[in-house]
Amino acid sequence: MINVLYATTAPAWADYETPLRRAFDAAGLQVHLSQDIAPEKVDYIVYSPKSALTDFTPYTNTKAVLNLWAGVEAIVGNTTLTQPLCRMVDHGLERGMVEWVAGHTLRHHLDIDYFLARQSGSWEPMVPPLAQDRPITILGLGELGRACAKALHQLGFPVTGWSRTEKQIDGITCLHGTEGLEQALSSAQILVLLLPLTEETTDLLDASRLAQLPKGATILNPGRGPLIVDEALIAALDSGQISRATLDVFRAEPLPAAHPFWAHPRVTVCPHIASETRASTASEVIAENIRRGEAGEDFLFRVDRARGY
Amino acid sequence: MINVLYATTAPAWADYETPLRRAFDAAGLQVHLSQDIAPEKVDYIVYSPKSALTDFTPYTNTKAVLNLWAGVEAIVGNTTLTQPLCRMVDHGLERGMVEWVAGHTLRHHLDIDYFLARQSGSWEPMVPPLAQDRPITILGLGELGRACAKALHQLGFPVTGWSRTEKQIDGITCLHGTEGLEQALSSAQILVLLLPLTEETTDLLDASRLAQLPKGATILNPGRGPLIVDEALIAALDSGQISRATLDVFRAEPLPAAHPFWAHPRVTVCPHIASETRASTASEVIAENIRRGEAGEDFLFRVDRARGY
Repeated sequence: MINVLYATTAPAWADYETPLRRAFDAAGLQVHLSQDIAPEKVDYIVYSPKSALTDFTPYTNTKAVLNLWAGVEAIVGNTTLTQPLCRMVDHGLERGMVEWVAGHTLRHHLDIDYFLARQSGSWEPMVPPLAQDRPITILGLGELGRACAKALHQLGFPVTGWSRTEKQIDGITCLHGTEGLEQALSSAQILVLLLPLTEETTDLLDASRLAQLPKGATILNPGRGPLIVDEALIAALDSGQISRATLDVFRAEPLPAAHPFWAHPRVTVCPHIASETRASTASEVIAENIRRGEAGEDFLFRVDRARGY
Repeated sequence: MINVLYATTAPAWADYETPLRRAFDAAGLQVHLSQDIAPEKVDYIVYSPKSALTDFTPYTNTKAVLNLWAGVEAIVGNTTLTQPLCRMVDHGLERGMVEWVAGHTLRHHLDIDYFLARQSGSWEPMVPPLAQDRPITILGLGELGRACAKALHQLGFPVTGWSRTEKQIDGITCLHGTEGLEQALSSAQILVLLLPLTEETTDLLDASRLAQLPKGATILNPGRGPLIVDEALIAALDSGQISRATLDVFRAEPLPAAHPFWAHPRVTVCPHIASETRASTASEVIAENIRRGEAGEDFLFRVDRARGY
C-alpha cells in the first residue's frame, strides 16, 4: 500500500479525490489516499503552493512532492524541502484549448447564435458554407497553435498559420515575418490569436491590422489580452469591419464589470477558461509519477533547484 | 468551348453561377455557361425537377443531363429524355453533417449557451471536463454516422456507435442488437441520432429508452423526426432526465409554430439544415462529370432507367 497525502486546499479535495483514485486504479497502483496521514508514513505528497504544509522536515520517508500547479516559484526556495519536487505539465491544457478553439470556430462557422436567437416559430433555413470554404488563420504556431491548426484542418477548414520564424506543418499554409502577417490576415474569415505575449506582440492587433482582415471577419482570442488594442477592436466591431469577437483573455482579469466588452452585442466574454488544468489529466500525471517512483524510474517534470523550475 | 445550359429555377441561378464557374475553372474546362443556349448547341444540361424544361427532344447533341438533386423520380420516366441522366451525390452533404454534429456536440460539451447567457459583467469561471471524459453515443453507423463518429473521436471524445447489424470501426466502440442498444444508451452523455427511418426505428426513442440514458443527457437529432416520440422527449426534458435537445428534423416540417419544441427553454430547433446540398461541392460533381464526358469516361452516379435511380 502506497501512502499518498493530499496536502492542499486549492485545488479542492472534492475536485481531485475521485480523479486521483481513478488514475491510481488505471495505473494499477494500490494507494491509500488521504488528507491525514502520519508524516513519517507518507510516501508521496500531492501539493500546491496553497497549502498549510510548509515544514517538510517530518516527512522523512517521502519519495517526492508532486505539485498540482505548473508554477513552483513559491515553494522551490523552501530549505526544509529536500525531497524531489515535480511540477505539473498537464496535457489536458492543450486538449482543452483545442476543444475551446474548435468549439467556438464551429459555433461562428455554423452561426449557431443565429439559431439560438430564433426559437419563436420562425422556420427560415439558412445554410452555412462548408468548412472547406471558410479560411481560418491562426497567429502563433507554438504547441497550442499547432494542435489547434491540426484539429481545424481535420474538420475540413483551410488553415493558414503565422509565426515569427519560419515553420512547416503538414496541411497548413505556414507564413512568417511582416509580409507573411499581412497575407495571413487578408484571407482570415476567422482569426485565432495564440501568440505568446512579448514586446513585439503587444498591441499587435491594432486599427491598421484589423483593417487588413476581410470585412466581417470573426476574432477568437484565447491567447493573451494585450495582443489586441481594445478600443480599436470596439471601433472595428461598430463599423462592421469585424463582425464578432469571442474573447477568453483580457488586459485586466477579471474583466471589470464596466468594460464595454461585456455589453457589446457582438462580443462574447469567457472568463479565462480555455487553458485551465483539468483534474482528470493532472491526476494521470500524478499517478504516472508515483508509478515511476515505485519502479525506480526518473520522475517526469522534476524541478532543478538550481535553475528554479 | 463546351456549352452548358443551366435549366432550373431551384436551386437558383444566383446561388450556382459562381460556384459552377469556379468548379469549371478548377477542372480546366472551357465552358460557356448560360440560362439561354439554342437547344441543338447544348452539350450538357444542369437540371433539377423544378424546371420548365420537360421536352428533351430538341437537345439532339446533348451528352448528359446532370441533376442537382439526389432524387430523380420526377424525371426518370420522361420518355423524351434519351440522353444519359446523372443524379447528385454530394460529398458536401456528409461534410455538412459532420460539421453540424461536431459543432453542436462541442457547443453542449463546452456549455457555450451558459456563457452566451452571462454577458452582464459576471466573471464566474466554469471549466468543462475534457472531451476524453464526455462519452458520446451515435445511433446509426451508415456513411453519415461513421463520418461523425470518426470526427468526434479525432476531437478526443470516447465514441460508442450502435447499428442494427454488427460493424467494426477503428477507435469506436461498436455495439449492435437489442442488448447493445441498452448499453449504448446507458453511457451516452450526448446522444446523436443518425438512423434511417424504418418500421423498426420509428418511435425508437420513447419514454423507456429515454429513461435508459444517464440523467441529464443531451440529445442531437439531425437524422429523422419520427425516431423520437415528441411527447416523451418533452416529458423527459421537464423531469430533468434529459437536459437539452437540439433538433434539426421533425415529424412535420416546417415545424408548426404552435409545436411545444419551439417554446421549450431547453430545445433548440434548427430548420433542417444539417444535410443540405452545398453549391460548392455539388458544382464540383457537375464539373467532374463534364470532364468525364469530354474525356470519354463513364459518368458518375448515372441513373439506371430500369431500376429508376
